[in-house]
Amino acid sequence: MKVLKFGGSSVATVEKIKNIAAYLKKRTEQEKLVVVVSAMGKTTNALLALAAEASSKPNQRELDRLLSTGEQQTIALLAMALCDIDVPAISLTGIQVGIRTSGIHTKSTIRKVETSVLEESLKDNDVVIVAGFQGVNRHNAVTTLGRGGSDTTAVALAAALGCDCEIYTDVAGVYTTDPRVYPKAKKIEEISYQEMMEMSSLGSKVMEPRSVELGQKYGVKIYVGKTLSDEKGTYIMKSTEITEEKVISAVSANDRIIHVQLDKLSGEPAVVANIFKVLSSHHVNVDMISHNLKQEGCRIEFTCNEDEEAFLNAGLDELQAAYPMMKVRLNKDVSKISVVGIGMRNAVGVAAGIFEILEKNNIPFMQVTTSEISISFIIDTKNSPLAVAAICETYQL
Amino acid sequence: MKVLKFGGSSVATVEKIKNIAAYLKKRTEQEKLVVVVSAMGKTTNALLALAAEASSKPNQRELDRLLSTGEQQTIALLAMALCDIDVPAISLTGIQVGIRTSGIHTKSTIRKVETSVLEESLKDNDVVIVAGFQGVNRHNAVTTLGRGGSDTTAVALAAALGCDCEIYTDVAGVYTTDPRVYPKAKKIEEISYQEMMEMSSLGSKVMEPRSVELGQKYGVKIYVGKTLSDEKGTYIMKSTEITEEKVISAVSANDRIIHVQLDKLSGEPAVVANIFKVLSSHHVNVDMISHNLKQEGCRIEFTCNEDEEAFLNAGLDELQAAYPMMKVRLNKDVSKISVVGIGMRNAVGVAAGIFEILEKNNIPFMQVTTSEISISFIIDTKNSPLAVAAICETYQL
Repeated sequence: MKVLKFGGSSVATVEKIKNIAAYLKKRTEQEKLVVVVSAMGKTTNALLALAAEASSKPNQRELDRLLSTGEQQTIALLAMALCDIDVPAISLTGIQVGIRTSGIHTKSTIRKVETSVLEESLKDNDVVIVAGFQGVNRHNAVTTLGRGGSDTTAVALAAALGCDCEIYTDVAGVYTTDPRVYPKAKKIEEISYQEMMEMSSLGSKVMEPRSVELGQKYGVKIYVGKTLSDEKGTYIMKSTEITEEKVISAVSANDRIIHVQLDKLSGEPAVVANIFKVLSSHHVNVDMISHNLKQEGCRIEFTCNEDEEAFLNAGLDELQAAYPMMKVRLNKDVSKISVVGIGMRNAVGVAAGIFEILEKNNIPFMQVTTSEISISFIIDTKNSPLAVAAICETYQL
Repeated sequence: MKVLKFGGSSVATVEKIKNIAAYLKKRTEQEKLVVVVSAMGKTTNALLALAAEASSKPNQRELDRLLSTGEQQTIALLAMALCDIDVPAISLTGIQVGIRTSGIHTKSTIRKVETSVLEESLKDNDVVIVAGFQGVNRHNAVTTLGRGGSDTTAVALAAALGCDCEIYTDVAGVYTTDPRVYPKAKKIEEISYQEMMEMSSLGSKVMEPRSVELGQKYGVKIYVGKTLSDEKGTYIMKSTEITEEKVISAVSANDRIIHVQLDKLSGEPAVVANIFKVLSSHHVNVDMISHNLKQEGCRIEFTCNEDEEAFLNAGLDELQAAYPMMKVRLNKDVSKISVVGIGMRNAVGVAAGIFEILEKNNIPFMQVTTSEISISFIIDTKNSPLAVAAICETYQL
């Protein structure tokens, strides 16, 4: 048994859905399949536009209901296409499977996957198609899992069923860096969960970090490849199983972040603590943080994802009311560059090497953070391609 | 409490949905509302086109899933629009309400409406929005109720909650005949369930017959009026409550029928019985039937709805295989004209009057059927407008 996932661009038209059906038919000669699909092409964006027209701040429960219809349409069409070529197939929504979620609407997390309906459906069918991106919460309401949620659905189903997972998209796997930025980027054959998690949380668009985390937790081997292509993709797996361990595996650039600078604050710990408490209550995922005491007061800097701009603004409004003297400055023209490698744990001088590259290329950086297997820094977006290229060339990525 | 239903053209755009939200806000000052909505504008047709692309004979379970997404989008958008103007509102799908259905996919019938979730939701909200046209069967699959199914949903909810029902469409009520065919047609203020049932089953497009039948069974007073208009509509109610009883209330013309002629059959009762058994097994609703013995064999004629053409063809294929000598002729260029009036029960000579009108206007008719409160006959579609006009003028409709 395998869980396969096809992204929105792979199912953008009924013709593409029929091609996938033909491919699945061949696969069913070997094994039973659970197939997770996203909404067709740009459907989710079109639905978001309708919601924005209905309300400037759409009710989140209702937004989830609206968004969840996209995947329902894809699963029905794929099931029809399979039945049409005599493959016994059935579609199930997140509610029908019993993908139980918790957390707030539009950003829910999977807390449990029921397997009884899935297993029952697999008895009678060769392919069971499951709507990605959605589940059901304790109030029996449809919830969605946020950006990249269909990947999470796929990995969660594979974990529940105890099988491997294959993620098919329009890119042929995981590259050392984004080939659109640096055309000489190389495909990675095998990468560890930890490296992939760092990469995805740091802005690489191939996989959603939660899904990789889930894969690591349950030991689900994840294959990432190009839809309907023979080209070899990338395996995401345990680091102990990887053949060749490199010091630096990949470089990623995330341009979709906001850099926030708060000035003229008092430096009391209670104030600093309260600022991040308020932001958290507005569901802002604060990333890099720095904190400086200056003559004219305390400066706090942090970054968050551009997607969270509405949450961020609500949080900042509340803070501005509490601290009327506070000056807020937002900057969206920044990028976070991350250098990732599991071998960094055992190598010295990696940070020094990176800083030397930046200096040589006259690229100033604003903030730096490090983890055991990564170094990240914030630079102006205009310098982002140059930084990526320079690092890739130096480390032969 | 009231159940209100808005059809697809009334919710065709988000702007229209917002106008309805503003209207509902005013209504909530007086009462709690349950609102049933259809899919936006031509959404259902667009989804049917996608299904046709996926398969020439789409799996019916999956077709129901696909079609049910249209209403889910409308309920979410209406709930958002209501929340946006501070009206506590929540949306529920047919599954969430517990609209239990039986029968085949795409043509299911409501067997039970649960009220617990509805009543619970009405406690916390001023408006509970329910997806029309859909329910859930014993296999926990989404089912749809066929053409006009949202009307049925609305009346069934009103019956379950014990309140009146208001159906809003783009026509201002029930007319003595279709004003597009006969512009001098008059609006009917009050009409009995029986008359309305005859009219709707005979082709008048205002209300689905099953919904009127449901209204009669549970004594739900149904108001039919124009969306967001002050113009007075039509009440569908018990005949005993109607102020003025007329001999003839209305004339309807149904152009969307197929006339079927089967020739060269043996006249044995077993053959005749088998023909209708096979058609029934293919879910063809046979309407008017006639049966003639001729020298060259037996001729059977009947009519059915144009929507059932696929079912009809499947049934005729099976019959052709069983009776290779049988000759089949289909004619779609026919209309069924029906004259309806509750007062017909107590009046004599109505049929004679109708036949005289047809004769005077040189309109030949093929088949005739009568009920206690109606007379129906089949004529060529080209004569349909003339027949309607002549009857309306004679009876001042």
